[in-house]
Amino acid sequence: MSAANLLVFNRAGEHMQLLEKERPSAQFGQVLVKNLYTTICGSDLHTYCGLRHEKTPTILGHEIVGEIIEIGIGHSGKDFAGSVLAVGDIVTWSIFSSDPLSAEALNGMPQKGPGLFKYGHAQITDEESFHGGLAQYCLLRKNTVLMKVPAGVPNQVAATINCAVATVAGALRLAGEISGKRVLITGLGLLGVVCAAMCKDAGAAEIITADINPDRLSQSLQFGADQSYLLSGDAGENHLPGKFDLVFDMSGAAEAMEQGLEKLDIGGTSVWIGAVFKTRKVCIDAEQIVRRLITVKGLHNYNYQDFAYAVDFIGRCHKKFPFSTVIGAEFELKQAQAAFEYAIKYKPLRVGIFFD
Amino acid sequence: MSAANLLVFNRAGEHMQLLEKERPSAQFGQVLVKNLYTTICGSDLHTYCGLRHEKTPTILGHEIVGEIIEIGIGHSGKDFAGSVLAVGDIVTWSIFSSDPLSAEALNGMPQKGPGLFKYGHAQITDEESFHGGLAQYCLLRKNTVLMKVPAGVPNQVAATINCAVATVAGALRLAGEISGKRVLITGLGLLGVVCAAMCKDAGAAEIITADINPDRLSQSLQFGADQSYLLSGDAGENHLPGKFDLVFDMSGAAEAMEQGLEKLDIGGTSVWIGAVFKTRKVCIDAEQIVRRLITVKGLHNYNYQDFAYAVDFIGRCHKKFPFSTVIGAEFELKQAQAAFEYAIKYKPLRVGIFFD
Repeated sequence: MSAANLLVFNRAGEHMQLLEKERPSAQFGQVLVKNLYTTICGSDLHTYCGLRHEKTPTILGHEIVGEIIEIGIGHSGKDFAGSVLAVGDIVTWSIFSSDPLSAEALNGMPQKGPGLFKYGHAQITDEESFHGGLAQYCLLRKNTVLMKVPAGVPNQVAATINCAVATVAGALRLAGEISGKRVLITGLGLLGVVCAAMCKDAGAAEIITADINPDRLSQSLQFGADQSYLLSGDAGENHLPGKFDLVFDMSGAAEAMEQGLEKLDIGGTSVWIGAVFKTRKVCIDAEQIVRRLITVKGLHNYNYQDFAYAVDFIGRCHKKFPFSTVIGAEFELKQAQAAFEYAIKYKPLRVGIFFD
Repeated sequence: MSAANLLVFNRAGEHMQLLEKERPSAQFGQVLVKNLYTTICGSDLHTYCGLRHEKTPTILGHEIVGEIIEIGIGHSGKDFAGSVLAVGDIVTWSIFSSDPLSAEALNGMPQKGPGLFKYGHAQITDEESFHGGLAQYCLLRKNTVLMKVPAGVPNQVAATINCAVATVAGALRLAGEISGKRVLITGLGLLGVVCAAMCKDAGAAEIITADINPDRLSQSLQFGADQSYLLSGDAGENHLPGKFDLVFDMSGAAEAMEQGLEKLDIGGTSVWIGAVFKTRKVCIDAEQIVRRLITVKGLHNYNYQDFAYAVDFIGRCHKKFPFSTVIGAEFELKQAQAAFEYAIKYKPLRVGIFFD
């Protein structure tokens, strides 16, 4: 057996360690993948900075694209779309595995099902080490949904499918019909930018984006936004124009969620995705929710259909919008520490990790 | 032309005046109805007490059942279900009229459509007086949806269809599938009690009701609730058991809406209906909304389908649940002032006004 590298995260403020372990092999129902490219997600940065706590030691990184090395016996040998899988195929996979026949999965929420396992979030044990993007290999558990990456999609773009893009696909599912709708998107990290592109693709009548970071406004205009507004942290100073049918909050900022609700037209829907960290409570005028028939929906992660939608969207639209500009800098695995520091300092939409 | 009585409300704290005016007749597209029974709704009490402000002088009362006296030319001569209408038919009607071809109506929200007119909420003018339940007649405008009252339904029950019962029907529509669901209902006025009955009828697995008023708990058990809990105004002292798929808030109390969200299971939905008055803001942990995939939906009034569902429900279930206990006391129109005082003092689910 050959050896393989993995980068181990122990705790915030401590250097990650590059270790070498025996390369795993695919057991019953598993698929072994060689990681080709990993993008560092905002939640990886939260863990790195100590804002989110995972059981350690762990391997960070869950936005990954890889190449199939081995398909274990007991695996269907097919991807979610029914395509036959083979060694050498470039694939993306759901960031989680769970029982696909659970009540949660059957109700469209496999990401909350029993036996949930999440790549890039798991503790390294004696038995299992290769389950994150900051390692040369990833061993895909039984009940992990795979999809072949459409031909021509660069690894840098494909890596973002299984977190950012699929989560936005889930947000659009919750929002319902997009065609002809007036859309506001608050928070212009990768989720916000992808949301603009996906709403444009789905036929939104108007897409307005907003952020408190002026550098991010112009980028969203290249991803389908019609206009972009600089928000003040003091909601009272903001004067976003018009009313909206749909508001997507990708910022997680209480002010943005509150203002989004105020900007909804009668019968409108706010989808909240960004609030995956502690913040002050969102304070709502319930009378307005009632009298204006407002809906608020929260989403965390995504389901299988969202994942498939995301793959299809990227296959169709990766050239239509400048996805290549998402990656602000690229680093080798052994320089991943520097990659995190770069991401924190310069705040590009994504920093990428490539493998030999 | 014969004369007819109407009771005019001018302002809170001032006696209502019983006036006599010429009986109206049905003009183009209109239907003239003789009011048979009116129930005093919570929002009538709000106006009466000065908590809600309407343009005055007005005629209060919008929960009404009546008998058709005259069908104007230009009216289809049919009810919403397609049944032919005739003089002498006992009917209920939507509390509003609006353009049925408006974007709002076509999107399932006719109650927010252009040209909205609401019975029991309109100013008396030289041209139009008879548009409330506290009068002998009600002149139904063009684009008011009528439904024949199913045979055998007492007037006391039929009167509540077009506000309380239809609004609850709308709440169930927003909640989606009820069958097999665990339901919590906060606030046990007529909306809450009807909600319990309607959820029972729709096959809910478990119905828990809760209120801060101990007198209202036992009544809800007769309307389908499995258990009923006394809530404290201090949410921290409440220990409602279990988790719920659906929470209906009929109370409008911020504490109840906040606690309802906490009691929702993953993927659960809260429907807010009660908050039609000013109160403190509802403070929400957005991270919980996101991570637990929670949905919040506000509803005010109802649409045509909800109204039809309400009529059907009452037709099927008015004997299955003790709807006759809803009316705490009955008064003649000329004693309506005393009816309001009784309602405020004794807080029955409804006080009724009957006509000769």
